[in-house]
Formats: sequence, C-alpha cells, structure tokens
Amino acid sequence: MNPFTRQAARSVASLGEERLIDSLRLWLGESSPPPPRGIGDDCAVLRPSRRIQLLTVDSVIYGRHFDDRARPEDAGAKLLKRNLSDLAAMGAKPTAAVVALTLAPSVTLDWIERFYRGLAAAATRYKVPIVGGDVAQSEGFAAILTLLGEAAGPRILTRKGARTGDWIYVTGQLGASLQSGHHFRFEPRLAEGAWFARRREVRSMIDLSDGLAKDLPALAPPGAEGALFSSAIPRRRGAGLKAALCDGEDYELLVSLAARADRAAFARSWRQSFPRTRLTCIGRFVSRNKTLPGTIRPGEYRGYEHLRR
Amino acid sequence: MNPFTRQAARSVASLGEERLIDSLRLWLGESSPPPPRGIGDDCAVLRPSRRIQLLTVDSVIYGRHFDDRARPEDAGAKLLKRNLSDLAAMGAKPTAAVVALTLAPSVTLDWIERFYRGLAAAATRYKVPIVGGDVAQSEGFAAILTLLGEAAGPRILTRKGARTGDWIYVTGQLGASLQSGHHFRFEPRLAEGAWFARRREVRSMIDLSDGLAKDLPALAPPGAEGALFSSAIPRRRGAGLKAALCDGEDYELLVSLAARADRAAFARSWRQSFPRTRLTCIGRFVSRNKTLPGTIRPGEYRGYEHLRR
Repeated sequence: MNPFTRQAARSVASLGEERLIDSLRLWLGESSPPPPRGIGDDCAVLRPSRRIQLLTVDSVIYGRHFDDRARPEDAGAKLLKRNLSDLAAMGAKPTAAVVALTLAPSVTLDWIERFYRGLAAAATRYKVPIVGGDVAQSEGFAAILTLLGEAAGPRILTRKGARTGDWIYVTGQLGASLQSGHHFRFEPRLAEGAWFARRREVRSMIDLSDGLAKDLPALAPPGAEGALFSSAIPRRRGAGLKAALCDGEDYELLVSLAARADRAAFARSWRQSFPRTRLTCIGRFVSRNKTLPGTIRPGEYRGYEHLRR
Repeated sequence: MNPFTRQAARSVASLGEERLIDSLRLWLGESSPPPPRGIGDDCAVLRPSRRIQLLTVDSVIYGRHFDDRARPEDAGAKLLKRNLSDLAAMGAKPTAAVVALTLAPSVTLDWIERFYRGLAAAATRYKVPIVGGDVAQSEGFAAILTLLGEAAGPRILTRKGARTGDWIYVTGQLGASLQSGHHFRFEPRLAEGAWFARRREVRSMIDLSDGLAKDLPALAPPGAEGALFSSAIPRRRGAGLKAALCDGEDYELLVSLAARADRAAFARSWRQSFPRTRLTCIGRFVSRNKTLPGTIRPGEYRGYEHLRR
C-alpha cells in the first residue's frame, strides 16, 4: 500500500501536529501508558533498574526497508521487532520504547493508522510500553525506534568472547528472507537469547541482520575466522548457499560455544527448552593461517551493503 | 552551508556504511566510549540506575529546523541541546544518548563531519556519552537523538501539579530566538531544572519550545488558565509581546510556585544560586470564569504550529 495521498483531507496535514499525536496515542492503545510514564510530558518517566541496561536504535524507511507491496501493519511491527532482535542478541528483555517519525504532510491517515496498529500489536505481544515520541515534517516516511532493555538474567552476552577453536551455532534457518516473507514474519529470539546468556559454555552472541558472511567476522576472535561446514548451514526453502550466507534479514542468533563444552548435553537441553526451533552447529573459529578440511571461509561472500548509490 | 554535493567522491556514498560509521565514531571522539558501553555491539551496555529514569527523543531536520545559513556544528549541537532541555524540564541529568541518521548518499563528508564534531563538543560539555546509533539511506538529512537520563535529586517535576492561585515563573528572556541566534546558542537549563526540583514550593515545570502561549496551557490546573502580567514578561532585545508569547525555541523553564510560598525567600535563594540568570514572576493560574485585573490570557495567541502545509 502506498503511504501517500494528494487529497489533503485524507492526509496527516489535515490533523496538524497535536491532533496527529492524539491519534497516534489512540492507535497505540494499551501499549501507550498515560503520562508521566508515557507520551504527554517533556520526558517519559521510567522505573530505576537494578540490572545492567541496554539501549539500541533502528529504523524503517519507505523505499529502503519496505515499499508499496508491504502491509503498513507489517512495516510497523517490523520496526519494533528489528530492535527486539538486537536486545535478544545480548540476552536482554525490553523495558520501554520511543518512536520518532519524520514524514511528509501527504502521508495518508489510513496508512499511518495501520502502521501504528501493527506497531501496537507487536508492542502488546512483546510487552513493550511505547512511552514517548516525536513527529517532524520531512519528505517521505521514516520511523525510528529506540529501545531500552535490561538483562534478562545475571549475565549478558556481547559479540566479544569467542576463542580460537570455539564452535559456531545458529538458530533457525537462513536465506530467502525477502522472498519468503520471513523479514516481516520473524519472531525476535528473546527467549532463546536469554537462554544462551544463562549457559556458561556460550561465550558470545550476535543477531544475523546483514547476512552470515557479513555478520560472522564480528564474533571471530583476534587472528581467527569462521570456518563453516557449508552443507550443515540450515537453509530456508528456496535458499542456496550464497543466499543463506548473504541475503540478510534472518534475525537468527549466532553464538560461539566453548571448544570443550559438552555439545551433546547442550543440544539436549536446547531441545527440551525449544523443541520446535532448530539449533545447528555450522562451524568453528580457526586461526587465519590454518585450514579445516571440508569447510569454507565466508570471506569471499558479502552480506547486504548499505548506503550504495 | 548546504549539506549536499553532486561530487560522489566528496559524499558519504564514497565511504559506504561501515567506513561511515567508523568515521562517525572518530568524529565523536571521547564522547563515544568503546563497546560494549558504546557503538559496536548489538546494543549499548549501560549501568543499572537506582533513580527514576527519563527517556526523550527529538530530531533536527534539514529544511525544517535549520537551513543552508546554519553552521553544521550548530545544527549538531542543537540536536543534543533540544533533548537536554527536555531533561532539564523534569529536574533530570543525562545518562546516555543514541543518534539515528536518515540521509541521502549525496550528503557531503565535510558537512557531516562538522555536524558530528558540533554534536561531540556539546556531548563532552554536558557529559553525555553517545553510546549507539543507526545510519539509513533516505532523501535529505534528518538526525534523531534519544536521550536517557535520571533524576538529579530525590524528586522530579512533571507538567502536572499546579493549583489554581499558583504563581507562574519563567527563566531568562523570551522571543526573537531565530533572529538573535538564541535557538543555536542557548544553554539547556540543567542546573536550574535540578534546583527547581529540589524546591518543595515548585509544583510543576515545562520547557518552552513552541512559545509561551502554546506551552503554558500544559501547566494549567483543571478549570484554570494562566493570567499573565504582560508588562512583566521578560523579552529578548527585538521581541515584542507577540514574539515573546509565540516565537518558540526559547528553551527556558516555566514553573508553577505554590500560592502560599515565601516568594521573597525563593527569589533570594535563586539569586544566590544563579546570579546571572533572570527569574521572573509573569502571572498566576486563575479560574477560567474569573478575571485578574491587569493581566492577559494568552489563549488568543498561538505558538509555533507543526505539520502545516
């Protein structure tokens, strides 16, 4: 659905800023708490936190992250889910979110209502209060969400911590995200991320958003790189090896497991906790100057590259 | 300075996303802590907070909040200072910020460097670590900053709490912000906001961004409105009464003071703490159906209205 209209009466310009903000709050429904906890004061007021906190920001932009083929509800939900995936990647859970819009006056009211109702449904589902926002005029349509969270358990995971020899595991399946609709339908791996953070044998974690080939190096220990068992890489239906490595928008979790870990016990425990979600060992981190028979280095593949003309 | 170029070699597109992000971190300098505290992991890692926390988001957009006449450094500093003013308005201090950019590939590298160096100088000055960000391609240029803070003392102030009969005070001077350059040069009233929150006779607070006439009703108790001593309203040089009421971008603090407060002691204490900053009693909150001789109701004036075609 195209977000824009030439009919002023159907556009956000017909409301003006204050009534638009009132409408946004209405559409957010129960995911928008009353002020001072929510929208309506200079800042949103949040509780103290005894745990380590996490902060992340991500956007969805018309013409870049979605187009006229997308349902507005899906674009709105994706805005939140992209950010939730970043929290999941550190073993955290959400606390609160704020949303900034930069939009043309010609954005259709019906379109923005559906975008916000999709965002609200996701916020309710994942228990994320939308506590603040900002609306500013520009060309086009962009929505930027900042998400605050806190550690789900006693420990968080970062991208750092893997050692040479560690195993590489991935959740779910990779590739063909756009063709299959996975990039809208995915569920952020919050429970799985929290589970990984509680397992001492897991050393580091990242979520796959730009493609395994591009994201894997961020987990690699100094002087090492990932050597992948190419046939083991779990591919979505319709995805070849290159697609699984490079398509991006997988929103799966990639973790490193200590070389000496009891991998059978790890896999058993995973199956008990997440019987429906695949967890696959896809390789190891090896020294750059060594080879591991039967493996590929994803260095020759490239993930999604932003900001190219 | 115009932010855009037709020469690809001078534009952000010449860098691509990863090298642009590396450059942004370089330009942020000491205001950008290393990961996991800062940019470089899935989320930024922040300390727990024992105090009430505050979250706010605000943007600066080319063509709306600044134009070719602006120095990029000023636009970058303003992005942070607008948000700091919102924290000040609740008696809070900053903890951390994240910045999202939506920008055309044709943005000049020199321009974005100067924008970030201005942002970094303000972040260093006000001790705000820039801990994360997002870069996405769009038309034009918009920067969106989300700011996390915490109460500076045992209490925060909100917009609610004034009672009929309460006095209305304002810091500094109002009006002519754009003509005088105040909208770039202003200092967010962080120390003053914290001071007000510690004074028990102060009942509520807001920062003036859209103009006194538009922002005052947010402080008014139910059934009441502000009656202003028009000659007392402190005007910036070149500002008439209408300008002082409606221009906007004052970034001054407006507070309500309990009707029975010892106003002389309040003024004395203020002068001791802030000898160089004016604090003026400009009116009272009175019942809508009553009149207060010698006062005006700003209802007939309107502040800055956003999102008009």
